[in-house]
Amino acid sequence: MPSEPIPALIAAVRDRFGPKAAVSDPADIEPWLTDWRGRFHGQAAAILSPASTEEVAAIVGLAAEHRVPLVPQGGNTGMVGGATPPPDGSTLIISLRRMNRLRAIDTGVAVAEAGMTLADLHAKADETGQRFPLTLGARGSCTIGGLTATNAGGTQVLKFGTMRSLVLGVEAVLPDGSIHDGLSGLKKDNRGYNLDQLLVGSEGTIGIITAAALRLVPAVAARSVAWAGLADPQRALDLLRLMQSRTDRIEGFEIIPADCLDLVLQHIPGTRSPLGGRHAWHVLIEATSDAADNDPAELLQPLLAEALERGLIEDATLAANESQAEAFWRIRDSISEAERADGPTIAHDISVPVADMPRFMTVTAAEVEAAFPACKASGFGHLGDGNVHFHVRGDGVPKHGPAITQMVYDLVTLAGGSISAEHGIGQMKLEELERLGPPAKLHAMRAIKQALDPLGLMNPGKLVR
Amino acid sequence: MPSEPIPALIAAVRDRFGPKAAVSDPADIEPWLTDWRGRFHGQAAAILSPASTEEVAAIVGLAAEHRVPLVPQGGNTGMVGGATPPPDGSTLIISLRRMNRLRAIDTGVAVAEAGMTLADLHAKADETGQRFPLTLGARGSCTIGGLTATNAGGTQVLKFGTMRSLVLGVEAVLPDGSIHDGLSGLKKDNRGYNLDQLLVGSEGTIGIITAAALRLVPAVAARSVAWAGLADPQRALDLLRLMQSRTDRIEGFEIIPADCLDLVLQHIPGTRSPLGGRHAWHVLIEATSDAADNDPAELLQPLLAEALERGLIEDATLAANESQAEAFWRIRDSISEAERADGPTIAHDISVPVADMPRFMTVTAAEVEAAFPACKASGFGHLGDGNVHFHVRGDGVPKHGPAITQMVYDLVTLAGGSISAEHGIGQMKLEELERLGPPAKLHAMRAIKQALDPLGLMNPGKLVR
Repeated sequence: MPSEPIPALIAAVRDRFGPKAAVSDPADIEPWLTDWRGRFHGQAAAILSPASTEEVAAIVGLAAEHRVPLVPQGGNTGMVGGATPPPDGSTLIISLRRMNRLRAIDTGVAVAEAGMTLADLHAKADETGQRFPLTLGARGSCTIGGLTATNAGGTQVLKFGTMRSLVLGVEAVLPDGSIHDGLSGLKKDNRGYNLDQLLVGSEGTIGIITAAALRLVPAVAARSVAWAGLADPQRALDLLRLMQSRTDRIEGFEIIPADCLDLVLQHIPGTRSPLGGRHAWHVLIEATSDAADNDPAELLQPLLAEALERGLIEDATLAANESQAEAFWRIRDSISEAERADGPTIAHDISVPVADMPRFMTVTAAEVEAAFPACKASGFGHLGDGNVHFHVRGDGVPKHGPAITQMVYDLVTLAGGSISAEHGIGQMKLEELERLGPPAKLHAMRAIKQALDPLGLMNPGKLVR
Repeated sequence: MPSEPIPALIAAVRDRFGPKAAVSDPADIEPWLTDWRGRFHGQAAAILSPASTEEVAAIVGLAAEHRVPLVPQGGNTGMVGGATPPPDGSTLIISLRRMNRLRAIDTGVAVAEAGMTLADLHAKADETGQRFPLTLGARGSCTIGGLTATNAGGTQVLKFGTMRSLVLGVEAVLPDGSIHDGLSGLKKDNRGYNLDQLLVGSEGTIGIITAAALRLVPAVAARSVAWAGLADPQRALDLLRLMQSRTDRIEGFEIIPADCLDLVLQHIPGTRSPLGGRHAWHVLIEATSDAADNDPAELLQPLLAEALERGLIEDATLAANESQAEAFWRIRDSISEAERADGPTIAHDISVPVADMPRFMTVTAAEVEAAFPACKASGFGHLGDGNVHFHVRGDGVPKHGPAITQMVYDLVTLAGGSISAEHGIGQMKLEELERLGPPAKLHAMRAIKQALDPLGLMNPGKLVR
């Protein structure tokens, strides 16, 4: 007589790998049943906690035997509920947090297990005079596995790209319990479909990432940060293009409208405008250099002078020292906080083709404000990535939130953009993806999901169904 | 009564798109039935030649209706018979050569149709002060579609990677006739599985690539080329790591054993050794700079001085001018020609993890020479890519060729390497892939192929079956 599948699976895992491998004390489980923003709540009778890739493979095999779906989890810092189990208790969480070793580090490459935090990887790379050039706010908690499975981005994408560009290979347990080992990190390997890249951004729906080989780059020897005032986003884009046609050392290029700057100056203590005059738009530019290179300030100065002469910018200043550079970045990083201090805000993580950014930022804002009169819309952020943080604030937001979001997503899709630039789909954006996603792509995704996970046991209800 | 499927498909294509869309004159077809190295010969009653993505989609739909498999073809410069139809005449060729337009070019990105040649793209990028940083010998014939479908590499991979790193998105007709449009080239887009990267390197087996959005980089302002003599491959790797830990401006790093240099000096007129003394191994190093950067020679000089002091190299010289730089590269590029002039040679396109390259180059050569006494084995090439050209020459080659190759592939696989670094699998390496490929990956590849191309009409008999 078959027992209940979930208790049977928990017992089987404990039997093989000891009590640590299946945690079921409610106090231990509770924090991991809710996403960190508190928007999604789920249930699970246990968190399975394998200590090695072989244990993950065995657990996936046992889960298939018992037909119990698994929800993989790293640092639980996702933004779209992708690591939160469903509320019906039909799944178990499989946490990769015990697998947190750095397996190897060498010039240009580190091999980290899925449960290692980003901050730990940064520290390890630093010890060897190198850096892992991706960072984001949750770096102390978020894990390599989660970053890889969600193709995370962050603030340094302009030059080095998202996780996808930095992942040289992954190790993953596939839904049939087999282990895909892509960790040799071959720089050239043309033996067919690239499973590693297919797993990057797959949100645990076709396999559980257990480790990744990651690209390291030389440590930054020096950086220079500039602030420029200008008339409109088109000129900002022209400035970026001018710079990118002359150098590949631009690592940050952030655009900020006057109203966002004003909010920061009003709500965030100790901030002051980098420039004396008033400008409709601002850009923050960061250039870096390697040990063997010349001073990045010497690189920015003539480019800014040329931009001034061409009428691309109205004024500019270079941070005189590191603390001024940090002050410039603090303005940029405080926008969300200043908006929240000002009143209700709704954020959208979207992207459009870089060339369309200027039009999108101005026209879309005007359209949203016309449709929802008690609202103010602002686009700011990573101009060079085509990734705008499109925020809408004001008294109309609490009432019209879902309608505003739907309008923004419609306009993004019309512009050939993405309703999820960085955060992924998870459970939060699944319906919108199904409504707006390109049918050819959705069809192909479903076919791949069905082919690799025919039993539907890998993070069900997320990304693709 | 159903007509014969192949004539019916040809008639249907002509009916819809005119006579140009289906070429069946034997004289016009003949050159495209054989791969350019003359190793694979096939048959096909017609070459279908669509002029637009919509025509490709319609043809794929018609082919599915008539159950006629299609073999996509670009410049027919492949190395593994991937674009050559089978000899039984069961397929038609679909050529992308009429689709050769540059659709758009902007700072950092070009959108090229599949049939555009690499040389044409280079010229277009050049006109805008940019470059497309991938090049290879067949540049005048090979096409963007073929380069993308095979994830081509070439001589500038060290800094910018293979096609995979340069493809921002692809447009492709999927086996069901739907069009996947990834050309918006969003730099950040986390809406699920990355079909674009899945199509890169898929050799036409799950879709026909019709266009690609490609990364452009600033034109090279200056280059500096150095030649160094050293004792062994481990020191060459240490030198590379020293340089890469200080700068990201190294674009070429090629390793050459003394016997290969000797062959070049002996057989290629006008060549001379860059260094006075004799060294067991040599490296050729190229550094480049953007407009805004300092002189790459000033970057290489202190690094070479440091390497000399540390005992990594025995001697080194910088090319004094562009013609000397070209003379250094000519030595490297003439190795294969010199070997052929010397006698029978067999080449292997393989890769191993970069860290294992030194051991692999020396130990494997010794093992092969021990097993096949009348042979001399030499590894040379892209040390920094882990991609060695492993050539075996001598009187034993004609007789033992297949046994030598099998031994090399076995040793590569044992070292965690790839039996196809650059050229792909096609029909030439399919059996060896099936013999040596990781079972988990082969299984996943077959599942994906079956899911996306259930009728098996996309380039059958290549890469995966």
